[in-house]
Amino acid sequence: MSSLLITGIGELVTNDDAGILRAAAVVIEGEQIWWTGPAARAPTADTCVDVAGAAVIPGFVDSHTHLIFAGDRSAEFAARMAGNTYTTGGINSTVAATRDASDSDLRSATARLVSEGRRQGTTTFECKSGYGLSVEDEARCLRIAEEFTSETTFLGAHVVPAGADRGDYVDLVCGPMVAACAGHARWIDVFCDRGAFDADETRTVLDAGVAHGLQPRLHANQLEAGPGVQIAVEYGAASADHCTHLTDADVDALAGSDTVATLLPAAEFCTRSKFPNARRLLDAGVTVALATDCNPGSAYTTSMPLCIALAVREMGMTPAEALSAATEGGARALRRDDVGRVVAGARADLVVLAAPSHVHLAYRPGVPLVDAVVHSGQWEGRTR
Amino acid sequence: MSSLLITGIGELVTNDDAGILRAAAVVIEGEQIWWTGPAARAPTADTCVDVAGAAVIPGFVDSHTHLIFAGDRSAEFAARMAGNTYTTGGINSTVAATRDASDSDLRSATARLVSEGRRQGTTTFECKSGYGLSVEDEARCLRIAEEFTSETTFLGAHVVPAGADRGDYVDLVCGPMVAACAGHARWIDVFCDRGAFDADETRTVLDAGVAHGLQPRLHANQLEAGPGVQIAVEYGAASADHCTHLTDADVDALAGSDTVATLLPAAEFCTRSKFPNARRLLDAGVTVALATDCNPGSAYTTSMPLCIALAVREMGMTPAEALSAATEGGARALRRDDVGRVVAGARADLVVLAAPSHVHLAYRPGVPLVDAVVHSGQWEGRTR
Repeated sequence: MSSLLITGIGELVTNDDAGILRAAAVVIEGEQIWWTGPAARAPTADTCVDVAGAAVIPGFVDSHTHLIFAGDRSAEFAARMAGNTYTTGGINSTVAATRDASDSDLRSATARLVSEGRRQGTTTFECKSGYGLSVEDEARCLRIAEEFTSETTFLGAHVVPAGADRGDYVDLVCGPMVAACAGHARWIDVFCDRGAFDADETRTVLDAGVAHGLQPRLHANQLEAGPGVQIAVEYGAASADHCTHLTDADVDALAGSDTVATLLPAAEFCTRSKFPNARRLLDAGVTVALATDCNPGSAYTTSMPLCIALAVREMGMTPAEALSAATEGGARALRRDDVGRVVAGARADLVVLAAPSHVHLAYRPGVPLVDAVVHSGQWEGRTR
Repeated sequence: MSSLLITGIGELVTNDDAGILRAAAVVIEGEQIWWTGPAARAPTADTCVDVAGAAVIPGFVDSHTHLIFAGDRSAEFAARMAGNTYTTGGINSTVAATRDASDSDLRSATARLVSEGRRQGTTTFECKSGYGLSVEDEARCLRIAEEFTSETTFLGAHVVPAGADRGDYVDLVCGPMVAACAGHARWIDVFCDRGAFDADETRTVLDAGVAHGLQPRLHANQLEAGPGVQIAVEYGAASADHCTHLTDADVDALAGSDTVATLLPAAEFCTRSKFPNARRLLDAGVTVALATDCNPGSAYTTSMPLCIALAVREMGMTPAEALSAATEGGARALRRDDVGRVVAGARADLVVLAAPSHVHLAYRPGVPLVDAVVHSGQWEGRTR
C-alpha cells in the first residue's frame, strides 16, 4: 500500500475538532487518510505533492441527485424563463426518454454527469431512481446507478405516471416495484408534496420500503408547508430534502431529531422560486446539508460550488457553514462518517482548490476553482 | 496560412442575419472566419475537427473588468455575507496592495485571471486601471494591461484615494495622470456615482480624457439613479455600465443613443444588491451587454457563463438574449465589429460547448460547459 504526502497546504478544512489548519499537510495511505497536521511535522511518504499554498477541503458529498435519466428539457427551461408555461412534457417527457433509452445510453449519460461532478469536486453522491416508474425501468435504473455509487435511492413514488390510476400506482410501488428494486437500493424516498404524494400515500410507501430493508429519506416541503418534514422526523429519516416552506413546528421537529435538512438551492435558482432560509434552520440547531438536486427539469447542475455560492448569497449561510453543509452535512444526510471530513481513518477524498481559502468558493462564483481531486486516495487532475 | 474546418456543429450561434444554424460548419483561415454554412456543403480545409453535435457560439466579449490588481478581499466578502460591516480596507486595501506589488507580480496575477477567463470562453476583454491612483501606478497598471488586451481603460477617477483632497485629485487625474496614461489606453472612464465622482467632476475628467484622444465610457447608476447615464449619452459614450437604478428618462436616453447599457449582474450577486432590469431596457430598444466586472471587491469572477445564468434567472433575459449580450453586445460596448459574431471576415473566436445548445449556459448553471476555445484561429482546449 503506497503512501502520498500532500504538503504546502495553505488552509486545510478538516471538519474535525482541529478546525482549519494553516501550513498543513495530509498523508494518505492506500484509500484512507492516515495523518493530518502541521507541514513542518509531516512524516515522510512514498510520494509527495506540494500544493504551493492552496486550500484543501474535504471532497463534496452530494446527497441528493437524480442522475439516471435520458434526454434534456432545455426547451422547457427556456420557455419557463421567458415566462411561458410549457404544457407538454415535464417529468413525463423524461420518463418517456428514459424508458426508450438503452442500458448503454443510460450508462454513458450517467457516466458523463458523474465525471462532470467529479471534476467539480464531488467524491460521494447519492442517486435516485424515479424516471422509470415501471417495475422494469425503476429496477433497471437502480442497477445502473449501483455501478456508480452505493448510495442509491428507490424513488418509484416520484410522480404518478401519465395515464396511471393513483391508487393502483401506489399499490404497484409498494408491491412488485419495491420488491424488484430493494436489492439495488439503500434508501426509500417519496416526493411528498402538492401534486405528488400525500401524507397517507407517503407513509404507505415508506412502510413498504422499510419492510424491504430500505432506510427512509424524503422530498419534503418544497412547494408548500405540507406534512413532509413531520413525516420525515416521525420515521427517523436520514434527511428531509428541500425544506423550502417550513412552519415553526417543522423547524422545531427537525431541531429535535437526527433528520438532516438538505437544502437544494439550485432548484430554486432554476425555477425562479423563493430560496429556503438556511439561517433559520442553523440558528435553531438543525443540521443542514447542501446538495445539487441534479435533474433535467428543475436543477440541471452538478456544481456543488454553485450551491455553496447560492447558499451564501441567498440563504444566509457563511462560506464556512455552506462548505460544511456541502461536505460533512451531506455525509450526515447519508448517515456516513467515513466521508465529509479530513481526519485520520476517513476515506481519502480531498479537493485542492485553485485558491488560498475555502471562502473563494463563494467569493468567486462561477469560476472553476477545483484544481485537483483526490478520490479514495487516487489523485485526479492537474499534477503540480 | 492554414485553414481549419470545424464540422458536426449541432447548433451554430452566428449573431448574424443567418441566426442559428443547425448541422453547420465553420472554416477558419489564419486568424479569421472564412466561411460558415451547412456542414453538407462545407469546403475542404487543411485540417478538420468534428465536434460531434456540440453547440458552437462566438467567444465571449467581456467589456468591463478591473483585472489589474494585487491581493484579495475574501475576508471583506465573508464579513459582508455574515451581515457585518467590514470597516478597514475596501478599495483602498487593493490600492495599497497594488502599489506594493512588483511589475512581475502584477503581470502574473493578471495572466492568471486572463487564463481563467479564456478557459471559460472569453476571447476579448476590456481592462481598466483604477487601483494605482497615482501617476506612476496608473500608468504602470495600464502598461501591463496593454500586454494582455488592446481594450484598456484609464480609470484614475475610480475613487479619491485615502488622504487625498478631492479637488487636488481631480486636477491630478486631469493633468499629469491622464498625460502619463493616455498612451496606454483606448478609453476614459469615471465612476460617476454616490460616494465616487459627481456630475461636474465626471464631465471634467471625461473632457480631459477626450482631449488626450481617449473615448468615453462610464460607470453609471450602480448605487442610485444619478446623472451618470445622461452624461454617458451626452458624451456619446460607447457604454454606460451597471445601469442598476434607472429613471424612465434614463431608459429613453439610452434607447435614443448609440450608448450600450452594460449590465454586470455578478456585482449585484456578490454584494446582495438588487439586480438591474434587463427586460425593461430590451423592451425599450436599448442595446444590452453583459460583462463580469471582475474585481476583488464586488465581483471577483471571470465567468461569463455565470453572468448569463444570472441574467436569465434575475434580469428577465432569455438565454438567447443573454448570450447575444455576452458576445455581440460586448462587442458593441467596445465599438468593435470584428468580434462577437461568427461571420466571414470576423476574427475567429469561437467557443465549443459541452452541450447541444446555447440554452445550456443558463439551463446548467455553474457547470463548466466550455469544451474548447478558438482564439484568433488558434484551437485551445480539448481535441476531440
